[in-house]
Amino acid sequence: MMGKNSVIKSERHGLLIRYLNDNPFLTDDDLAQLLGVSIQTVRLDRAELDIPEMRERVKKAARGAYQNLRAIEEHEVVGELVDLEIGLQGLSILTVGEEMTLRKTRVLDGQYLFAQANSLALALIDTEVALTGTSKVSFKRPVFRGEKVVARAVITRKKGNKYMVRVNSHVKDELVFQGKFLVFDLSEEVNRLENSH
Amino acid sequence: MMGKNSVIKSERHGLLIRYLNDNPFLTDDDLAQLLGVSIQTVRLDRAELDIPEMRERVKKAARGAYQNLRAIEEHEVVGELVDLEIGLQGLSILTVGEEMTLRKTRVLDGQYLFAQANSLALALIDTEVALTGTSKVSFKRPVFRGEKVVARAVITRKKGNKYMVRVNSHVKDELVFQGKFLVFDLSEEVNRLENSH
Repeated sequence: MMGKNSVIKSERHGLLIRYLNDNPFLTDDDLAQLLGVSIQTVRLDRAELDIPEMRERVKKAARGAYQNLRAIEEHEVVGELVDLEIGLQGLSILTVGEEMTLRKTRVLDGQYLFAQANSLALALIDTEVALTGTSKVSFKRPVFRGEKVVARAVITRKKGNKYMVRVNSHVKDELVFQGKFLVFDLSEEVNRLENSH
Repeated sequence: MMGKNSVIKSERHGLLIRYLNDNPFLTDDDLAQLLGVSIQTVRLDRAELDIPEMRERVKKAARGAYQNLRAIEEHEVVGELVDLEIGLQGLSILTVGEEMTLRKTRVLDGQYLFAQANSLALALIDTEVALTGTSKVSFKRPVFRGEKVVARAVITRKKGNKYMVRVNSHVKDELVFQGKFLVFDLSEEVNRLENSH
């Protein structure tokens, strides 16, 4: 019988690349579990594919991301910004500290998932003045202390000065939060006001 | 010609009561502007109607509110809780500090309005274990430093362990935020899990 371990190497390499594409913050341990192989095998695979370890991947990604910010500032991004293509998409990671959890349930307070997603949505807009208009969010499963929430935001529509941004937040391969944000670019409005004075 | 100032006293008393009902945190100055009369007139009206000044009204209201909390704790309520009828409705007030505003726009970061409303929604549920499932929010107008946001939350529907909570947040008489929160009472689920061990 073919077990998970018997997946041929090229197939496993394909899976590994796909998993890391979805979530660049998977550790070797996470990958080993997902692929059903040993950590050693994951390390070998990474070496063959020339993929650095998680910490290096994050550092490398983060270096550029903050420089691209326009509508909000570095300290206003909730979580760590690790990828930002202004006008397109971005990615941030929030490590859940005890102080972010509700004491009664020991679960991450939903406001942090909202704040991570909302600040990422604003970060995507190619303007100096952006504000959220409406938003629809869904909390898919409780998140606990120590977990890393990877939020990926994509601009899915643009009409005039309105942008629709969709955010999916995962812990490992589990969806924990989904949000749609309608964001307004108010730069023209502000310019108009300033010129009228 | 009849000016605003000519509104007869009984009519003005009626308006004053209605304004304070909508927003108990209006100052005498706010009321004077709304009614188009002098602050002295407002003070006289309050005296005649036996309504204490704003600071007193808030203090009195707040005394009881925190004692009623169940699902979340005092420090987890974003803003000051000034009224709480568990299972029914509640009211909190958030004073916007500079640190809550986005530097680029000088506008209150939407996450605070969300957090105020979300924590108030959880506070209403008569259980020790409540979590937000989904939420739909709308930011009606920018809020600035120094403004006081009064959030009023009401349970509008209950079905099994699911509660629909509607939140309206005002600055003075202007609506700045609206939210609907679907909140789950998970106490039975937790009990079941605990008993199965």
